[in-house]
Amino acid sequence: MIAEKLRKLYDNSGADALFIECDFLRRYLTGFYSTDGYVILDGTGCKFVADPRYFEAAEKRLAGSAVEVVAGSYPEAMALIAGKKTLGVPFPFMDAAAYVRLSKSHTLTDCMPALRGAMMYKSEEELALIQRACTIAEDALLSVLPEFKEGMQEREVAALLEYRMRQLGASGTSFETICAFGENGSVPHYETGDRALRFGDPVLIDYGCKVEGYCSDCTRTFLFGDDKQHEEFKKIYEYVLTAHQLVKEHTVAGMTGREADAIARDYLKEKGLDKYFTHSLGHGIGLQIHEYPVLSPRSEEKLADGMVYSDEPGVYLAGQLGIRIEDSMYMEGGKTHSFMSKTQKNLLVL
Amino acid sequence: MIAEKLRKLYDNSGADALFIECDFLRRYLTGFYSTDGYVILDGTGCKFVADPRYFEAAEKRLAGSAVEVVAGSYPEAMALIAGKKTLGVPFPFMDAAAYVRLSKSHTLTDCMPALRGAMMYKSEEELALIQRACTIAEDALLSVLPEFKEGMQEREVAALLEYRMRQLGASGTSFETICAFGENGSVPHYETGDRALRFGDPVLIDYGCKVEGYCSDCTRTFLFGDDKQHEEFKKIYEYVLTAHQLVKEHTVAGMTGREADAIARDYLKEKGLDKYFTHSLGHGIGLQIHEYPVLSPRSEEKLADGMVYSDEPGVYLAGQLGIRIEDSMYMEGGKTHSFMSKTQKNLLVL
Repeated sequence: MIAEKLRKLYDNSGADALFIECDFLRRYLTGFYSTDGYVILDGTGCKFVADPRYFEAAEKRLAGSAVEVVAGSYPEAMALIAGKKTLGVPFPFMDAAAYVRLSKSHTLTDCMPALRGAMMYKSEEELALIQRACTIAEDALLSVLPEFKEGMQEREVAALLEYRMRQLGASGTSFETICAFGENGSVPHYETGDRALRFGDPVLIDYGCKVEGYCSDCTRTFLFGDDKQHEEFKKIYEYVLTAHQLVKEHTVAGMTGREADAIARDYLKEKGLDKYFTHSLGHGIGLQIHEYPVLSPRSEEKLADGMVYSDEPGVYLAGQLGIRIEDSMYMEGGKTHSFMSKTQKNLLVL
Repeated sequence: MIAEKLRKLYDNSGADALFIECDFLRRYLTGFYSTDGYVILDGTGCKFVADPRYFEAAEKRLAGSAVEVVAGSYPEAMALIAGKKTLGVPFPFMDAAAYVRLSKSHTLTDCMPALRGAMMYKSEEELALIQRACTIAEDALLSVLPEFKEGMQEREVAALLEYRMRQLGASGTSFETICAFGENGSVPHYETGDRALRFGDPVLIDYGCKVEGYCSDCTRTFLFGDDKQHEEFKKIYEYVLTAHQLVKEHTVAGMTGREADAIARDYLKEKGLDKYFTHSLGHGIGLQIHEYPVLSPRSEEKLADGMVYSDEPGVYLAGQLGIRIEDSMYMEGGKTHSFMSKTQKNLLVL
């Protein structure tokens, strides 16, 4: 991250120093990934305390950046914050053992509000990584579609999709792949199981991958063969798709998350389906799969250029069917754009 | 878990109630997996507070067990601990935000010492799940060996191995797969990259999978073709293998983790290699990949029946070679047994 952004983050935190042990936040502040280490940000600059496993690689990678690499581990990190009265630490991403230990020597405040504020706005580099994660996710799904056959289990499809994403360059999944056949689609957070695929089944896949830590998030719902028993499914699919597209077209800078959510929710209400849309429209995406802004009926966060969020309306009829269509999106020039254009959104029948 | 074990755990905690939000600990206490929920254990019994997503499945699964399922979420969980003065919470597995919130109404103590003490001893059911995770890991590696070819990247091998474990029934990996070709093997915590396989390369793979949350951990080192340039490698391989086998033969109940570690370390010292054995001999394995007991030069934990741990001596010559041989093991009848017998340990040359 550039010096000016780090400086602003430090100022916004209101602490004498930020002290970060958590891996994805270390990565955010330094741009360098490690499983261990400490980042200390104060008025004099940003230091990354790296042990022998990482020191050499970190020095090479961060040469000329705003981050100074310091050799050491916990004692060296402690020495750097000695004399700092108020320490900004990320309460939700710090364990209670560390909290108790540090609070003996320092006054601790939560620096996540300041970090969240900064992390909501993605840089060009971050947007490019999310784009790559989205492209890999789409390419992987396209490569898996021809391999669907009757009798395949949900977990087999999930495993194959994950394998393809890895082959295409992802480091892993951004969350546990949801693959739901038939009536299982009606559970929004379904746990992929061993249900076997049958002709005529709806298929709902909610998945994503990571590229250098950055996530993609995508959901597609389609039919495995058309047994002509799916008139209601097809009708609702069109409504969900329209809700998804309306959000894409009408979400503009300055709107709140609540207003964006209402675009989909109001439309589904017209169709009598709002009570089956049981979750929020979307969430921010970045180094974590669930970030800010939140696009929900209660969110007053204002959308702006550089933000990345999902657009994922869904309709669930318990024990019958579930339809969700989701793209990862970003805002640029005051408008919403999708990272995803390779997979079709009109109802696919395999 | 059976009522008697829960009761003992509660007594050992010294708290008025245990309050658990963390997923793998919830799973340990109830045997039921969910991404959300609260477990409250006190003198009257064990309650699992489940929201509508999990309530039905939890009720079905836990009928007749020592765990009572209660419908609700955070407010219902709070109501159940109202009036409890001292609350046992797992400091290392609880975030600081939750700690700060709960400490306003309760005195918090760390219940992890009591939990660790209980979790070190595996039940028959837990041992069976770890055995399955180990068998899948070995079968997957055996199925991948014939597919090695020159030019393949480390990450391709890792992806293929992970896919095979998923196909064989694993829910995922137990940690990030390490696949290191050639000189990369000399970094004990190597991050799998894009190094391409060449004839004569040593290959080090450290990997494992999960079955119903329980982990396996395995490392194999072998040669991709013999270019006759590996006399030193072969000699050291024999020493590491002997160290590994000596541990298996001589680790018995009543020994400390330090004494088990010394079996391998002393032998490697005889060969002048102890300074290249830069990590501990092993660690406990269970719902987490790193548990207790620890088998290291500083561990005074006594080994006993029902414990599960890795036996993984290694020798690393920086920039040249790394050899590690690891099985997941368990203690029964006072002796150490391996979960792994399918893959060969004499040096394999592909």
